[in-house]
Amino acid sequence: MKVLAEKAVVVGTGLIGASLASAAKQAGVFARVSGVGRSEANLQAALSAGHVDVVTTRLDEALDGADLVVLAVPVDTAVALLPEVVEATGESCLLTDVGSVKTPICEAAVAAGAAARFVGAHPMAGGTDSGAVHADPDLFRGRVAVVTPTPETDAAGIEVVERLWQALGSRVVTMGSREHDATVAVTSHLPQLLATCLAETATRCDDRGHLEELIAGGFRDTSRLAASDVAMWASIVDLNSEAIVEAMDAFTAGWERLRAAIEAGDAAAVESILTAGCSMRESIGK
Amino acid sequence: MKVLAEKAVVVGTGLIGASLASAAKQAGVFARVSGVGRSEANLQAALSAGHVDVVTTRLDEALDGADLVVLAVPVDTAVALLPEVVEATGESCLLTDVGSVKTPICEAAVAAGAAARFVGAHPMAGGTDSGAVHADPDLFRGRVAVVTPTPETDAAGIEVVERLWQALGSRVVTMGSREHDATVAVTSHLPQLLATCLAETATRCDDRGHLEELIAGGFRDTSRLAASDVAMWASIVDLNSEAIVEAMDAFTAGWERLRAAIEAGDAAAVESILTAGCSMRESIGK
Repeated sequence: MKVLAEKAVVVGTGLIGASLASAAKQAGVFARVSGVGRSEANLQAALSAGHVDVVTTRLDEALDGADLVVLAVPVDTAVALLPEVVEATGESCLLTDVGSVKTPICEAAVAAGAAARFVGAHPMAGGTDSGAVHADPDLFRGRVAVVTPTPETDAAGIEVVERLWQALGSRVVTMGSREHDATVAVTSHLPQLLATCLAETATRCDDRGHLEELIAGGFRDTSRLAASDVAMWASIVDLNSEAIVEAMDAFTAGWERLRAAIEAGDAAAVESILTAGCSMRESIGK
Repeated sequence: MKVLAEKAVVVGTGLIGASLASAAKQAGVFARVSGVGRSEANLQAALSAGHVDVVTTRLDEALDGADLVVLAVPVDTAVALLPEVVEATGESCLLTDVGSVKTPICEAAVAAGAAARFVGAHPMAGGTDSGAVHADPDLFRGRVAVVTPTPETDAAGIEVVERLWQALGSRVVTMGSREHDATVAVTSHLPQLLATCLAETATRCDDRGHLEELIAGGFRDTSRLAASDVAMWASIVDLNSEAIVEAMDAFTAGWERLRAAIEAGDAAAVESILTAGCSMRESIGK
């Protein structure tokens, strides 16, 4: 495959960063990859597994001569690092990221004067394990990668990032950062918060100590996400609060309709909501 | 194991009824079992697999000489059939059921003058497949079986039903029907309705046709129950509406606290709710 970057720099060699570096090297789209991170142990794990060619804890050192930089750190860290990355790289160096909320980093790129050479990305992949030791070059295969250019991104830059994700085996969906954030507020952040509040409700309803004994598979499935990393989700909620409140309100509107129908004993209305949910869930498959 | 019934009758030889009959025969606690049902094909499936000893579509015929009757039909059908079953059986014949809502059938037993010889039961087991062809004598092994006597049930009758479920490999939890219904409203009915409303919300939020592309494992897990049988759930909602509305309101209280904290940017309050949900979910294991 055609080389997309002679010298790529992956900032953050955790699960996503190391998997991306490894897959891009294997696919031949990154000629050389530098890994940057704070943890020496994690960098050495990425290096010894061959996911990256060189590693350093010094961001400025790594960025020297880079033609593509991938920020693979938490969204708030990426937003904080971006001005330094813009400053240390040339106008021809393409900048991208992998964060799960896209408007803050796209706005940061505009604010840093790098709107033309920044393209956001969000691979819909991940896992419960973290760190370079769990990196897997097939992590993105068969998954959707959302690509979110800024309004001023060069067409050529968009194409490079789209081709990068295609090379990793992902199906690319390109949209604006606000559309991305509103959509994942419904498809990802809303399920997380529902799972959290279901589990939290159970802690308040256990009058006689029998509640846990009557928990079966349905509760487990529906609340599974509640066990996710609290700090990561607190940050996502903070960074996408507006779209999340909107998604919560959309849910509440349906929830209140259902409650009213149940209280009124309106069997037809209850069945209509159950049917709408059933059809939608069946349409997306197992 | 000691025989608990010389002639047991299982009314409804679907997944639960046929599995129960099969397991009770294997365990030696039912000497002979008659299966009653409306579908000849399903009855023949139960008979040819050896789950029951004889089958009939005639309830009165089956009940003759019975010393234990298990109603393994949907709750509303069980409530409708109970007076006939009480009428056709002697005072020494123990009556039980397997429904997922317990107050209506316990009240029906009291109304039919059979409070002393009725003991409700609800095995926390099941599957997506239905019918005698999917029956499995190990279906109840390792699961909880809730036993709900009426306030007047004879102690000896309670003991027989408890020993029946223990013989099938279940762990027995005994409680009043109202406590059962309030608890499953939280552990089973609430997750179902949250999954339904999550899926229903998604149908209203797909402005640009990209929503399904951005659905990943989290949405799938949290909404999985939405694909459940609509008619069955419409009936459960109808039969347990009071406790369900109470559980929905308990959820809504936490949901509104979370929404207010997110809108106010109150990171400490958001994190405290995420942490409560996370701890609870981790405590019940995978």
